[in-house]
Amino acid sequence: MELTKILRFSAAHRLTSAMLSSEESDRLYGPCARDHGHNYALQATVRGTVDADGMVMDQVVLERAMQAVVDLVDHRDLTRDVPALSGVISTGENLAATFYRMIDRMLPPGRLVRVAVVETENNRFEYEARREAP
Amino acid sequence: MELTKILRFSAAHRLTSAMLSSEESDRLYGPCARDHGHNYALQATVRGTVDADGMVMDQVVLERAMQAVVDLVDHRDLTRDVPALSGVISTGENLAATFYRMIDRMLPPGRLVRVAVVETENNRFEYEARREAP
Amino acid sequence: MELTKILRFSAAHRLTSAMLSSEESDRLYGPCARDHGHNYALQATVRGTVDADGMVMDQVVLERAMQAVVDLVDHRDLTRDVPALSGVISTGENLAATFYRMIDRMLPPGRLVRVAVVETENNRFEYEARREAP
Amino acid sequence: MELTKILRFSAAHRLTSAMLSSEESDRLYGPCARDHGHNYALQATVRGTVDADGMVMDQVVLERAMQAVVDLVDHRDLTRDVPALSGVISTGENLAATFYRMIDRMLPPGRLVRVAVVETENNRFEYEARREAP
Amino acid sequence: MELTKILRFSAAHRLTSAMLSSEESDRLYGPCARDHGHNYALQATVRGTVDADGMVMDQVVLERAMQAVVDLVDHRDLTRDVPALSGVISTGENLAATFYRMIDRMLPPGRLVRVAVVETENNRFEYEARREAP
Amino acid sequence: MELTKILRFSAAHRLTSAMLSSEESDRLYGPCARDHGHNYALQATVRGTVDADGMVMDQVVLERAMQAVVDLVDHRDLTRDVPALSGVISTGENLAATFYRMIDRMLPPGRLVRVAVVETENNRFEYEARREAP
Repeated sequence: MELTKILRFSAAHRLTSAMLSSEESDRLYGPCARDHGHNYALQATVRGTVDADGMVMDQVVLERAMQAVVDLVDHRDLTRDVPALSGVISTGENLAATFYRMIDRMLPPGRLVRVAVVETENNRFEYEARREAP
Repeated sequence: MELTKILRFSAAHRLTSAMLSSEESDRLYGPCARDHGHNYALQATVRGTVDADGMVMDQVVLERAMQAVVDLVDHRDLTRDVPALSGVISTGENLAATFYRMIDRMLPPGRLVRVAVVETENNRFEYEARREAP
Repeated sequence: MELTKILRFSAAHRLTSAMLSSEESDRLYGPCARDHGHNYALQATVRGTVDADGMVMDQVVLERAMQAVVDLVDHRDLTRDVPALSGVISTGENLAATFYRMIDRMLPPGRLVRVAVVETENNRFEYEARREAP
Repeated sequence: MELTKILRFSAAHRLTSAMLSSEESDRLYGPCARDHGHNYALQATVRGTVDADGMVMDQVVLERAMQAVVDLVDHRDLTRDVPALSGVISTGENLAATFYRMIDRMLPPGRLVRVAVVETENNRFEYEARREAP
Repeated sequence: MELTKILRFSAAHRLTSAMLSSEESDRLYGPCARDHGHNYALQATVRGTVDADGMVMDQVVLERAMQAVVDLVDHRDLTRDVPALSGVISTGENLAATFYRMIDRMLPPGRLVRVAVVETENNRFEYEARREAP
Repeated sequence: MELTKILRFSAAHRLTSAMLSSEESDRLYGPCARDHGHNYALQATVRGTVDADGMVMDQVVLERAMQAVVDLVDHRDLTRDVPALSGVISTGENLAATFYRMIDRMLPPGRLVRVAVVETENNRFEYEARREAP
C-alpha cells in the first residue's frame, strides 16, 4: 500500500551557480536564470503493509517530516535564504532529491519511496531511490 | 498500455473500531475519529495490449465495475451504512484495498493493476496487487 | 477592490428537518437525505479601498474570522454535532447564509460582501447581503 | 456578454516599502515580507454586445494586451526588476489595480470591466473600475 | 441567494459561417476556423429567496434543464450536428447566449440570472440577461 | 530522476475505422463514434541521472519534441486532418502509443519512459515502453 501526502509552499528562486557567469546562466537556464517564484507542491509517498488500525503509516508522522521541510523553504528565496540548499542549484530535480533525503532521514528506514516536486501545472520532478541505484 | 478511469462519490465516515474506546480512537485518529466526510475520487487502472479496435479494455466494462462500487458508497455513511464495509475501519488504505478486491472480482482476471482513493487534495491511497505479495 | 480568501473543511451532513418524516426527507432531498459528506470550500469576499500598505484588509483579520467558522465545522457532522447549526437544515444555501452572518459579525461593519460555499465540483452557493434586501 | 481570458506567470516578490523598516515590514506583512514567489493567474474581463461574427471582442486583441503585461512580469522579481511596478508594493491588490490600468490603456475605451489576480489557490484580488468611483 | 450548477460535455466545433469564405474564416478566427473540440463546462446560476426547506430551487429542476441542453450537444459536432445551433456560429459567446435562452425557457420565469460557458482553462464566456438590456 | 512535462491541445475526433460500418462503430464506441472533441493533456516523462547543472534533461529539448506533436494535432480533427494519424483509430490508447513513438524519435535514445494522454478529467491513457515487451 502507498500513501501520498501533498503540502504546498511559495518560494522564490533563480537558476545559477557559482561556477557560471551571468551570461552562461542565461544561456543555460533561459528565463529561469532570473529571479522568479512558484507555488510549489511537495508530494511524498511511503509504502508498507497496512496495520490493524488500517494505516500504512500514521499520517501525522509523515506530515510532520514534510512540514519540517516546508518550514525551511516556505516564503523564502531558495537561492539565497535557505541554508539547507546552500550550494544547491534549485532546479526541480535538485529540490526533489534534496527533499527526499531530508524527509527520509526523519522517517523510519525503508518507508519513503518517492518524492515529487510540482513547480507549475506544466512540469513535475520525481525522485525514487530504487531507480537511482548504481 | 494502461487505462485509468476516475469516478467520484461523496460519503461520510469516522475512524474507529469495535476494539477501541472513544478516547483511544481520538488519540489514534485525531479529528478523523469524529463524524465527517469527503468528496472522494476512485481511480482504477487496467493494463493490457491494445486490440484491433484501439482499446486496452472497453471503457464501459471498467466503468460498470467501478460504478457498482460507487453505488454502494455514494451518499452513504461508510462507517454505519455500507454492509460491504462492515468491520472495515474506513481509512483510505482500507478503502483502496477493499475497492480493489471488489472491482477485480468484476473484471476479467489479471487486468486490474491498481486502485487509488483520493480523500482530499492533500492525500491519496494506492493499492497495487503486485506490490503486496507475501 | 475585492479580496477573496478560500478555506477548506471536511464535514458530514444529511438533509432533513424535525418537521419531516424519513420518507418526506427522501422525497424532497433524494440521496442527500442520507448521511454523507463533502470536502467543502468556504470563500469570503471583502470590499474596500486599498490603504497605503497596499491592502484592502489585513488578510490575517479575514482569515481569523473564517478560521473561527472552520474550527466549528471541520471534521464534524453538520447535522448533529455543531451547536451553531442547530435547527439549520444544512443545505449549501443555509450554510452560506449562516457562515455569512458569523463572519460578518467578526469583521469591521460593512466590509464583508459575499460568502460562497462550494459543496462539490458541480455546485456552488453564494450569499450576498445586498441582493437579499426586502 | 462578458469574455474572461486567463494567462499565467511565475514571479518573485516581497512586501515592503521604502517607508518601512525591516521590522515594520515583518510586523505588517508577516512571512510575505520575505522574498518568495508564486504562480500567478491574471484574469481580464471585457464586456460588450456580441457582433455578427459571434464575438464580444477578438480574443487576440485581449490576449495581446494581457501578454504585454505578462511579458513585463513573468520570470521576474516584482519588487526589484519591473520598472512598471517601481514604487508599487506588490500586494495582490496593487497588482490587480496596476494591471487593470495597463490593460485598459491597450484596449478600446470602456471595454475592460474587471481584472483579477490569483496569487495562490487560497486568495484572489479583483479590481472593477465601476466599484472604485469616488 | 444564488445557486450555480456545473455540467460538462465534450464537443467538436469550428468557427465559420455561410457568409464567409474559407480564407475569411481563417483570417477572422485563426486556428479556431479549423475543426477541433473541447471539454466544455456549462454553468447556470439561479437566484431567489431560500424556502423553508433551505433551498433557492430544487437542484433536480435546475439540473434537468441543464441536462436537456447537454443531451443535445454532448459528443456532437456543434457546427454540423446540432439542429438547435443551426445557423449559430459556435463561439463561446453565442453558445452562452443560446444555452441561456434554452435553460431559461425550462425554468420558472425570472429565476435564471446567468449562464457561463468555459471552453478551456484559459477562457470563459458569461451571459447575464440583466446586462444585455437595451 | 524523472521529469514530466505537460502540454495541452484541443482537438476533434470520432472513433471509427474503415473496417466498420456506421452501425458497428456506434455499437462498439457508443457516443464516441460521433464527432466530438476534447481539451487534451499530453504528458511525457524522461528519466536519467541529474547532471552538474541540476537537470535530468534540458526542458527546452523535451518541450520542443512535445510541441512538434502538439503542432500537428492542436485545433485539428484527429480523424480526418492529421496525416501522422492516418489509419489510426484515435482512441486514447492509440494516441498515447503514437505520440510516444513520435516523441521518442526526437529525443536521445533511451530517455523517454512514458507518455500519457488525458482525454477528460475522468480518463487517462498511459504508454510505457518497458511494459509493452513481447
